Amino acid sequence: MSNLASPDVQPLRVALLGCGVVGTAVARLLTEHADDMAARVGRPLQVVGIAVRRAGKDRSETGVDPSLFTTDAEDLVTRADVVVEVIGGIEPARSLILRAFEHGASVVTANKALLAEDGPLLYQAAQEHDVDLYYEAAVAGAIPLLRPLRESLAGDDVRRVLGIVNGTTNYVLDKMDTTGAGFAEAVEQAQELGYAEADPTADVEGFDAAAKAAILASLAFHSRVSGKDVYREGITEVTAADVHAAREMDCVVKLLAICEVTDDPAEPGGRGISVRVHPAMIPRTHPLAGVREAFNAVFVEAESAGELMFYGRGAGGDPTASAVLGDVVAVARHKVVGGLGPGESTYADLPILPMGRAQTRYHISLDVADRPGVLAQVATAFAQHEVSIETVRQQLLSPDPATPEDGRASLVIVTHSAPDAALSATVDALAELPTVRAVTSVMRVEGE
Amino acid sequence: MSNLASPDVQPLRVALLGCGVVGTAVARLLTEHADDMAARVGRPLQVVGIAVRRAGKDRSETGVDPSLFTTDAEDLVTRADVVVEVIGGIEPARSLILRAFEHGASVVTANKALLAEDGPLLYQAAQEHDVDLYYEAAVAGAIPLLRPLRESLAGDDVRRVLGIVNGTTNYVLDKMDTTGAGFAEAVEQAQELGYAEADPTADVEGFDAAAKAAILASLAFHSRVSGKDVYREGITEVTAADVHAAREMDCVVKLLAICEVTDDPAEPGGRGISVRVHPAMIPRTHPLAGVREAFNAVFVEAESAGELMFYGRGAGGDPTASAVLGDVVAVARHKVVGGLGPGESTYADLPILPMGRAQTRYHISLDVADRPGVLAQVATAFAQHEVSIETVRQQLLSPDPATPEDGRASLVIVTHSAPDAALSATVDALAELPTVRAVTSVMRVEGE
Repeated sequence: MSNLASPDVQPLRVALLGCGVVGTAVARLLTEHADDMAARVGRPLQVVGIAVRRAGKDRSETGVDPSLFTTDAEDLVTRADVVVEVIGGIEPARSLILRAFEHGASVVTANKALLAEDGPLLYQAAQEHDVDLYYEAAVAGAIPLLRPLRESLAGDDVRRVLGIVNGTTNYVLDKMDTTGAGFAEAVEQAQELGYAEADPTADVEGFDAAAKAAILASLAFHSRVSGKDVYREGITEVTAADVHAAREMDCVVKLLAICEVTDDPAEPGGRGISVRVHPAMIPRTHPLAGVREAFNAVFVEAESAGELMFYGRGAGGDPTASAVLGDVVAVARHKVVGGLGPGESTYADLPILPMGRAQTRYHISLDVADRPGVLAQVATAFAQHEVSIETVRQQLLSPDPATPEDGRASLVIVTHSAPDAALSATVDALAELPTVRAVTSVMRVEGE
Repeated sequence: MSNLASPDVQPLRVALLGCGVVGTAVARLLTEHADDMAARVGRPLQVVGIAVRRAGKDRSETGVDPSLFTTDAEDLVTRADVVVEVIGGIEPARSLILRAFEHGASVVTANKALLAEDGPLLYQAAQEHDVDLYYEAAVAGAIPLLRPLRESLAGDDVRRVLGIVNGTTNYVLDKMDTTGAGFAEAVEQAQELGYAEADPTADVEGFDAAAKAAILASLAFHSRVSGKDVYREGITEVTAADVHAAREMDCVVKLLAICEVTDDPAEPGGRGISVRVHPAMIPRTHPLAGVREAFNAVFVEAESAGELMFYGRGAGGDPTASAVLGDVVAVARHKVVGGLGPGESTYADLPILPMGRAQTRYHISLDVADRPGVLAQVATAFAQHEVSIETVRQQLLSPDPATPEDGRASLVIVTHSAPDAALSATVDALAELPTVRAVTSVMRVEGE
């Protein structure tokens, strides 16, 4: 990596438009991960400016070098190789992106409203200027979804996309389902916890989800779909009675973005697209039913791949910034090496630890003699190996017919996290204890 | 698209190595989707040959043009722009892939064993010859996983990958959990249903999962990890008692592929990789716990993105072929347009149907008078709009205090699928019926 730091390697210039929650996270991560990003791109990235609306505002809490701030976004985009647009809304975002293209910059944006309104215009402009337009963050935040849809499934036929793409409404409906609250009460809770804005219209009326549905349908079906093509019903009229009725059907109410190709004999060619956002009951056994709180998930049905699901955080500064930075690496790499390929790299070259040094937890079941002092002996074996115990459960067992005079008990022990070697040595030591009749089950515990 | 079919457009030559379940599906889909693939790539794809081990075998059930079969794979790879390797195993796959690179072909493979053993050698050879090596199908079949890991998360720091990447063992463990069966019995069931091979060693001993874990760890941590670096325990020693013990802990036993970056003070630099495959208990509330039967799912934790999950079919001819074809489009497109980018295309340009023509199902709750003939009236309203009813549930309600002399009942109706306009007109008609006191809830039903 030494050549990346050498003075004759020209860094790639990155301009940031907007410095809200996402912009701040992008700026911070570009600095924190500068070395990694340089290795992945093949050249260092340098933030050359951050366009903000008002000068002079105190932005010290962002931790960004104040000399980078500028109110002249129109100038900034002409000085960059890669422009990251996180202002949102239609204007001035659209004009700035088009201006960036004209000056040869590739653009990464999280702007779903703009893409849903003017996607085709923007794609065409990018193509004319031979630059890239990437926007993974525009739908479902951190979840890698658009790249899989347009690249991984490029050899397949997508039939249906069914998504929970708005975290606010999912939080509200989840609270209505789990607590029996009404709509207004659940919205208030969401506002208190920062999951809903003071004016929640864009979320609860389904406008946000409709913009995302338009983007998903365009990619899934290779057709022009804009936000105004999307049938839209929000969740403001979902009542506690509706949620209760769903529960009686073993269903749950979710706000779904639905994009389907349907056979429609009324259409010339016989096929048409249905794109809609509305609340719907789905069976509790459906993978989307288990999507709780403000999480997002998108279910895709393709002809050959079958059913796929993508799940993760749909909003928030850092998750959205993760998606933005993935796109920044892709477009920057395209500028540097001329391909958008993965560039297999093993630059990190971390050592591989032996299993004994892996941190794990054990669940151990013992068949022990029911005598005073047994638990103390067992606990001592753990302590000697510096393994700490999270829980112990003891249960009397019926006596062994061979030795009916001896009492028997089972001990079930779950440990805290420890090196696997210590855990495994503990099990060996336990097996040697005279009061341990048998180690009946040993299994690692994961996922917490 | 007419220019794609014109005689002066040189098709891109595709060679297929292997014609088993996956190869046959790839060959069939390349033919069925020829127009779509041509639009996505920018040039038609032509299968120039399919290498098989033995000539003369009856392959009529594959539906492939018999003149394409050849036993001379060494010659075939020199005549192709894109080589698809679905033979599996180390040799002759490795030599053929290297030979393809030497002759300027890009390669798409599903060969996890080879990648786990010799990935770095192959990546380097591809780079030297300025061609692509793609292998989405090698891990978790149809699930787009490798592309998200190496591209979407390229600006993030992956901390942990926790995956169910072997369908056979998941099927066996799922059966042990749901039916209380022992290991041997569950394996037999899996074999009867085609989920396990006659010799299930590679699956149940964790070799298959270990190869996938090595590939995942390499990509996630930008380091060289081969199959032999992976600590491996299969599921052959998992007993019904272990599964029962897990259940008592509100856990489920899964065979997990685990790749973690851990802080290890014993390492110079303080960081190391732990890569392992072993059965483990995970809480039933964990998203991986709900992965049933032969499905695969991979849970990824990244610093900024947080928790992500990818879910789908991990094996099978068509799902694996979907992943292969996505890669074929990517490498073919790279050859045609010089970039691996998505190429925003709206070539399909399908019409967008109005909401009235969307096929949906309704759940309708009515508050009705409890009189003879009410259900007949309601059912007639549905029939008049050509909407068929799936279920009706009737329940007596306590009388309205305002009109205590009238009996009241609730009717809950779930329809079969019908055009939304017909359903919505039915609801309007129901509201007009004199015996319907109120339409108390109307909601669409999705996800079946």
